[in-house]
Amino acid sequence: MRSLWVKRIDKLKIEARKLNVEAYLCLSPSNIHYFTGCSDAGKLSYGFLIPLGGGEPTIFTPEMGAVQLASLLPKQIRIETVKLGSNPAKEISREIGRFKSVAFDDFSYSGVRKIMGEAGEVRFEAHPEIPQKLRLVKDEAEIELIKKAIILVRRGVEAAEEAIKPGVAEYEVAAEAEYAMRSKGLEFYAFETIVTSGPRSAYPHGFVSQRKIRNGETVVVDIGAKVQGYCADITRTFVVGKPRREILTAYRAVLEAQEKVLTYVKPGIKGFEADMVAREHLDRLGFKGTFIHALGHGVGLEVHEPPRLAPQSEDILVENSVFTVEPGIYVKGKFGVRIEDMVLLGKEKAKVLTAKVKKLEV
Amino acid sequence: MRSLWVKRIDKLKIEARKLNVEAYLCLSPSNIHYFTGCSDAGKLSYGFLIPLGGGEPTIFTPEMGAVQLASLLPKQIRIETVKLGSNPAKEISREIGRFKSVAFDDFSYSGVRKIMGEAGEVRFEAHPEIPQKLRLVKDEAEIELIKKAIILVRRGVEAAEEAIKPGVAEYEVAAEAEYAMRSKGLEFYAFETIVTSGPRSAYPHGFVSQRKIRNGETVVVDIGAKVQGYCADITRTFVVGKPRREILTAYRAVLEAQEKVLTYVKPGIKGFEADMVAREHLDRLGFKGTFIHALGHGVGLEVHEPPRLAPQSEDILVENSVFTVEPGIYVKGKFGVRIEDMVLLGKEKAKVLTAKVKKLEV
Repeated sequence: MRSLWVKRIDKLKIEARKLNVEAYLCLSPSNIHYFTGCSDAGKLSYGFLIPLGGGEPTIFTPEMGAVQLASLLPKQIRIETVKLGSNPAKEISREIGRFKSVAFDDFSYSGVRKIMGEAGEVRFEAHPEIPQKLRLVKDEAEIELIKKAIILVRRGVEAAEEAIKPGVAEYEVAAEAEYAMRSKGLEFYAFETIVTSGPRSAYPHGFVSQRKIRNGETVVVDIGAKVQGYCADITRTFVVGKPRREILTAYRAVLEAQEKVLTYVKPGIKGFEADMVAREHLDRLGFKGTFIHALGHGVGLEVHEPPRLAPQSEDILVENSVFTVEPGIYVKGKFGVRIEDMVLLGKEKAKVLTAKVKKLEV
Repeated sequence: MRSLWVKRIDKLKIEARKLNVEAYLCLSPSNIHYFTGCSDAGKLSYGFLIPLGGGEPTIFTPEMGAVQLASLLPKQIRIETVKLGSNPAKEISREIGRFKSVAFDDFSYSGVRKIMGEAGEVRFEAHPEIPQKLRLVKDEAEIELIKKAIILVRRGVEAAEEAIKPGVAEYEVAAEAEYAMRSKGLEFYAFETIVTSGPRSAYPHGFVSQRKIRNGETVVVDIGAKVQGYCADITRTFVVGKPRREILTAYRAVLEAQEKVLTYVKPGIKGFEADMVAREHLDRLGFKGTFIHALGHGVGLEVHEPPRLAPQSEDILVENSVFTVEPGIYVKGKFGVRIEDMVLLGKEKAKVLTAKVKKLEV
């Protein structure tokens, strides 16, 4: 059986050859991880060069990562150690100099310009769309890791729900959620935890403050976990005590909007179409203008990756893609509601991966 | 009294005018934060455009950030809301189109190319060195926030030390350290926590594993905290039980190397000179080749920012810069030791900001 990373590289080669280039250079950590199959390789190296015509793929790593990567990477990958004090752009460029033309993914503008500056005559072209397209379709190993990350966020949400009480501060809820995930072996958080309460829950990305939760308020909890680099991302909205009518109405509307999307999405649907299903439903119920962000995003080695489920998005939802569906209603100065689940798209319909994470009973 | 952010923008204008451009565009979150004085602005916006010849500075934010930023930003900053479904690069480019020439900092290569593609005739030049140079010198408000972050990492280190016992897993130590910081109101972690034990402590960036700590082993704890965007970063090495001779010798050598640097550094010293002081000391003591990373890095709105204290680094250490001094010894397959402190450079000498975080008594 051929290893996963070899299969991935083979697919990359097929796509990259169509560009009439001789090599593909990964500079983004998540792509380096994807094509080496090694999480630490993404975190600890400068680049991964894949010659299309044969020859061994080469990873560029600083001295301090060399021993660690040698113990983790498959033997077929050559490790090029960039000595302390050497210029990584120069080392990468020297290798690239063996080719007439090289495609690459993405990195900081200044970083790419440094490599270009050193690379001389080589034609050096940005083609981030190739790994993007491959990573859109998750293989079994990837789905397993995402599911493991979801088991952890489930723990986090349960701990948050238990911690939410009048008088408890937002950051204290975050502390409990994070601790519950970490104690179960979490690798790291997928993003900065969000716990917003009362009027602050009307900020979709309000992060965490010292504010104390009060009775009758909504609390939006948006947390993420990583397992071997693969992310889970989930949001639940809780109400402390008995929800008042306007909150209940909004919660039901968001839940319905989400359910409509979940039964609607199938392979071939475009991002803007999925978004429109939720948006039009909320508009019809009288919430026009309150759903102030996109419906969802792909999740994998990055917590935000293609496809985008958003107005104007032409991204196509494909079989075995994993993405979030997260409608919301935000009423300025009053409250916010968001419900976010992760979905694996099957041949005909969506499977909710986060189905076991309890929602409010309304 | 002029606000901090106004002073910072004034300094930026003076520097940027020398480039003969008409405006400066910040795309990097930390620069947007720095020049608006608002942490959430960095996290929630696409860019911050500063005309050099007058006219109000403009921040570009998605719909979901607009209300939040309106409540936080000074009134003199104009908020340009990028509607859901609109292209942020296009919106930014339209504003830029009013100028003949614009300098910018740094962002993803693909992101910058999108803006360039839309910006037409405008001369668009990368000048990340301007904010870099300004941010090198910390003002009083910045130093206060860094000190607050250090109070939190101190709690984290204490909790880690308490948790370290034979049979406890690395991730459990991380859980306790993070929980201790979070419960005291931490905003978020400054980077992925590192807890490495035994032979794994020979990996400078070994992150956290399921490995259980054993008696006699070293445990390297490297943790970070953020307060209003400002980072603290510290490393301590603990030994479980009685340290054997080779560990003790290495620990003393690292400590001495650090002390030598701390008494050596003063304004005007170059990064490579500081690094050399530590490296030569370790070489002399017989540890040649075991110190496999740079001596240190600046800390501020980013946990790694200029100046670099590393071989070949020509970065000059200036008064009121804040940086780490973190020599280490890593013996493959056996153990590692790293001691990292944060320093504020005074007019004549270094002040250790993390002095109250206990080191091993040797």
